[in-house]
Amino acid sequence: MAGDSILLAAVSVLSACQQSYFAFQVGKARLKYKIIPPAVTGSPEFERVYRAQQNCVEFYPVFMVTFWIAGWYFNQVFATFLGLVYLYARHLYFFGYSEAAKKRMTGFQLSLGTLAVLTVLGTLGIANSFLDEYLDLNIAKKLRRHL
Amino acid sequence: MAGDSILLAAVSVLSACQQSYFAFQVGKARLKYKIIPPAVTGSPEFERVYRAQQNCVEFYPVFMVTFWIAGWYFNQVFATFLGLVYLYARHLYFFGYSEAAKKRMTGFQLSLGTLAVLTVLGTLGIANSFLDEYLDLNIAKKLRRHL
Amino acid sequence: MAGDSILLAAVSVLSACQQSYFAFQVGKARLKYKIIPPAVTGSPEFERVYRAQQNCVEFYPVFMVTFWIAGWYFNQVFATFLGLVYLYARHLYFFGYSEAAKKRMTGFQLSLGTLAVLTVLGTLGIANSFLDEYLDLNIAKKLRRHL
Repeated sequence: MAGDSILLAAVSVLSACQQSYFAFQVGKARLKYKIIPPAVTGSPEFERVYRAQQNCVEFYPVFMVTFWIAGWYFNQVFATFLGLVYLYARHLYFFGYSEAAKKRMTGFQLSLGTLAVLTVLGTLGIANSFLDEYLDLNIAKKLRRHL
Repeated sequence: MAGDSILLAAVSVLSACQQSYFAFQVGKARLKYKIIPPAVTGSPEFERVYRAQQNCVEFYPVFMVTFWIAGWYFNQVFATFLGLVYLYARHLYFFGYSEAAKKRMTGFQLSLGTLAVLTVLGTLGIANSFLDEYLDLNIAKKLRRHL
Repeated sequence: MAGDSILLAAVSVLSACQQSYFAFQVGKARLKYKIIPPAVTGSPEFERVYRAQQNCVEFYPVFMVTFWIAGWYFNQVFATFLGLVYLYARHLYFFGYSEAAKKRMTGFQLSLGTLAVLTVLGTLGIANSFLDEYLDLNIAKKLRRHL
């Protein structure tokens, strides 16, 4: 197990650090714009930082699930590459949104696109494993034989 | 690994799609009720859709954890069935809550009940594995022998 | 798989119960302070309970990721101990914050410290597996030989 998931694990630790970093930025924005807990409103600047982090929080489990399944059932190296693209997209999104609501779109669209590709790869990988196991039909191997 | 988790992986990809779909519905409600980011208040209709999605987000990691553990330690087919019930319950909850706050209860109670069963099955499975490994006592096997 | 993750699975089920318990406390606070869904504001007492739970929700996937990776790649027993410390820290945090915003700090700092240690252990474990697999260099084994 450990061997064939090591890149996935490395990207996951990196993504956990990124999530913590975004949460830390919200804490910094709280101090900067004097938003006293438990309030989360009162300054448009703070609200943008907070909303950017909340959106990253919402999508984080979805990312982890599709990322690990694409890595396990399709291909670890592909999933790792897409995982790094996702982290970069979330970086763009977070700092774009922190500056202005309009600047969030590039990162957001890139992150959604990456999630969509991970979902498709995971589905293909599951479908192939399913056919292989239950119908003894390995499409990936057959394709390779014909190439 | 891949073989004995394939149904769990399939339900997980489906659940990730459902989470993305709920997030997309919030985006649509933003446009419909003209709630400009980063605001999340201003229209009771939008707030219901948003709150419904937030509740699904909160419970999603709890669902994934109990679902996979019930599938790994108890029984994959049982967990898969309960996972599909959970997704259906969340569907009822989300669209019920979007219509009226009172209509959220059926789906919510069904989703909590399913989570409770998954938690109990996971705990039983862990307890059995624990007894098996550390005390060399496999209750599941003994029960089967007596039936 | 099942055998070498059993303690991780047990702590995970416990943590899922804790998350559900916090969500249940928010429901109770809704009734107590008469905050009708979908509203989440209107009473500072309710807002503190809600904010405490939201913070636990935000960090839950980060905790699960670092916890499992530290357990798989570093050491299961260490990770289990740290996982239990994290759950205790979140308990302190939640009930502290519910009482007063200032009382949230002890639990919060303990939970962040635990997350940081889990992240460092996970990173060390991944680095060691990486060197072992790709450079055939197992530092952990060499250290043990010299002791």
